[in-house]
Amino acid sequence: MTKAEKEKQAGVSGNERIVAFSDGVFAIVITLLVLEIKVPEIAAGLVAEELPRALVDLWPKVLSHFVSFAVLGIYWVGHHTMFMYIKRHDRVLLWLNILFLMFVSSMPFPTGLLSQYGDQQIALVIYCGVLILAGLAAIAMWWYATGDRRLVDEDIDPTLIALIYRRGLLTPAIYLVAIVASFVSLGIAELFVVIAILIYVVPNPLTYHRKTVR
Amino acid sequence: MTKAEKEKQAGVSGNERIVAFSDGVFAIVITLLVLEIKVPEIAAGLVAEELPRALVDLWPKVLSHFVSFAVLGIYWVGHHTMFMYIKRHDRVLLWLNILFLMFVSSMPFPTGLLSQYGDQQIALVIYCGVLILAGLAAIAMWWYATGDRRLVDEDIDPTLIALIYRRGLLTPAIYLVAIVASFVSLGIAELFVVIAILIYVVPNPLTYHRKTVR
Amino acid sequence: MTKAEKEKQAGVSGNERIVAFSDGVFAIVITLLVLEIKVPEIAAGLVAEELPRALVDLWPKVLSHFVSFAVLGIYWVGHHTMFMYIKRHDRVLLWLNILFLMFVSSMPFPTGLLSQYGDQQIALVIYCGVLILAGLAAIAMWWYATGDRRLVDEDIDPTLIALIYRRGLLTPAIYLVAIVASFVSLGIAELFVVIAILIYVVPNPLTYHRKTVR
Amino acid sequence: MTKAEKEKQAGVSGNERIVAFSDGVFAIVITLLVLEIKVPEIAAGLVAEELPRALVDLWPKVLSHFVSFAVLGIYWVGHHTMFMYIKRHDRVLLWLNILFLMFVSSMPFPTGLLSQYGDQQIALVIYCGVLILAGLAAIAMWWYATGDRRLVDEDIDPTLIALIYRRGLLTPAIYLVAIVASFVSLGIAELFVVIAILIYVVPNPLTYHRKTVR
Repeated sequence: MTKAEKEKQAGVSGNERIVAFSDGVFAIVITLLVLEIKVPEIAAGLVAEELPRALVDLWPKVLSHFVSFAVLGIYWVGHHTMFMYIKRHDRVLLWLNILFLMFVSSMPFPTGLLSQYGDQQIALVIYCGVLILAGLAAIAMWWYATGDRRLVDEDIDPTLIALIYRRGLLTPAIYLVAIVASFVSLGIAELFVVIAILIYVVPNPLTYHRKTVR
Repeated sequence: MTKAEKEKQAGVSGNERIVAFSDGVFAIVITLLVLEIKVPEIAAGLVAEELPRALVDLWPKVLSHFVSFAVLGIYWVGHHTMFMYIKRHDRVLLWLNILFLMFVSSMPFPTGLLSQYGDQQIALVIYCGVLILAGLAAIAMWWYATGDRRLVDEDIDPTLIALIYRRGLLTPAIYLVAIVASFVSLGIAELFVVIAILIYVVPNPLTYHRKTVR
Repeated sequence: MTKAEKEKQAGVSGNERIVAFSDGVFAIVITLLVLEIKVPEIAAGLVAEELPRALVDLWPKVLSHFVSFAVLGIYWVGHHTMFMYIKRHDRVLLWLNILFLMFVSSMPFPTGLLSQYGDQQIALVIYCGVLILAGLAAIAMWWYATGDRRLVDEDIDPTLIALIYRRGLLTPAIYLVAIVASFVSLGIAELFVVIAILIYVVPNPLTYHRKTVR
Repeated sequence: MTKAEKEKQAGVSGNERIVAFSDGVFAIVITLLVLEIKVPEIAAGLVAEELPRALVDLWPKVLSHFVSFAVLGIYWVGHHTMFMYIKRHDRVLLWLNILFLMFVSSMPFPTGLLSQYGDQQIALVIYCGVLILAGLAAIAMWWYATGDRRLVDEDIDPTLIALIYRRGLLTPAIYLVAIVASFVSLGIAELFVVIAILIYVVPNPLTYHRKTVR
């Protein structure tokens, strides 16, 4: 690349700190989720009889912990995939990433809300709402970075750009459907949250393309 | 660079650990802020009626969480910008950075104070005071690193040095104005805190220079 | 390596983010363990007499903190060893790693459970159970990465693969024995947990091979 | 370096994960310290009169937070300095480092103890005791790494090895003196803790050598 071409490029190279900062936020959020699961307090004389039951009662919390862990895993894998192709950054990207991390780091609250008030529609709406916002922030990053090939390589494969768009929009779309479904039935809405995980974790043509995105 | 020139240089190269350590502190502080927002406890029979209202009542906490997130974002972006030009480090820089991180890591306390006692001037004064101290520590780092070109490249652009100074001094200056304004009206003072965020997030000639600082 | 050979390879290179993310989770989990140890609350007039005793009473918690710290150390060293040989990654590996981290990040709960209800078999069973699941997830990663030499070098030493398998299977095996032993005696079961640590920390032919694995 | 020479070397190169893991633990511990400082709870009608006073009463906690922050800063700078010269690692070093981090990550407990029971000798003895153990673990790492030049460069400057020893032994020595002094007067003992910080932060011939250690 000539110096003139370099001048033309937007942003500067060296994304190490962005990804390190983001990895830190993800690692902390994911670990804090488990702190929601408290060791049950049982009166001394009753431990033997009541502890097993108290642990079984924790099951919904454990489950919602696993779900949120998997959901955050989806977002981390997505972020990782985008930043394999985003080669440079400027301040707009930094701030879009901070916006994205703001929603991601908020997850302990909606997770706690959902695990405590799982039978309330509003808890599920907030849970899915925060995830939609995080998803839109991620999409905004991809849109900004790839528009005019601003922060990606000039010769990036257009089908790759489209694939990451599709994967990135799929998540908010499913959570939006879950919110709509919650007006009919909370059970169906929760089913969609689980389906979102399966779509991303289980390899399938919608989200998976062996040669370009991992 | 000849060996003689290298000898002349202050400090040693390799700032990876400084930035990794700093990124870690920022990631943790930013994530801990959300723990201030607690899931409301509501008696079993009243959940359906009272939960929506209890969530609306959390709004000031959510807002102060967002503000502190953005403020810490400003400081992280600033730290990142400085360390794109600081190429070496010595013990003085290490300790100035630790001083900076000490104020940054303190932020959960003033944030909690402000979200709980937002109508008390002292809460706002402490909030802005900690941010001023963090800003001054950052400025001290830049002053130390660029004086005699101690830890930056010899041929660094002087307008760049000045620009980072201006941006670095702008933050403490605004928070100082906010403290002064708080003697007149808390609302005006809080407005300045929000203005500080806008100045840094929205691209503008005061803080933004496409070619040199991102 | 020719381009054709590269095409044949599964996965992409660049595991920095996987290990950074994992290191972050380990660092946080290991540090959160100590938060279980609370400063005792003593009425003002009785501090001088009662504080020493209250601190001695914390001893079981301190001990279980040390044990969990060492256990997580074993898993971190194992993860580090595997990722010295895993050179590339794909989405399956990313998700196996997330699964592994999910169990690792859960450790504060079983640790708290065991330190509070150390005399209950169910606490020890859950503690060892989570560790077995984490161990099996680690083994699954190694199995996936080394099968067909998918994500490791073609010419990796087969005895090295076998050694890491042996070390990786040893941990879950010991914890399984501890669970079985807990039906006979909790003391013996806890002994096995301590033995597992000694086997990994003290150099010995079972887990240690100077030339290949450190 | 010939292949034969490489074979002779103990350990493997690539310390990135050790330092990343250590930086993570330090970043988290240092940030958790501030959580000890709780926002005071004041009855609604009395806030205006009582909040300033309640904040002043927090001063000892703020101070002990600053002291622990600086002390952990000393250990981080020391760890950073050692790992500028430790070029390789083996399992013994990994485990010595984990031992070191175990004591470092314990610091929230003695810090909380000291800030709550600052007038009790036992609190200061435990505080200094944990720091002594962390210091000894660090020294053990240096002793292991430099013995037979095991994990450092063959031609490392012997005066540098001695200097790092001196600096590393100075910390535990001062804390030992503080423990001894605590039998005479708690105030004098606390003075030694502060002196230890000054010795490391303020450049002086005991700990500072511009050309070799930063």
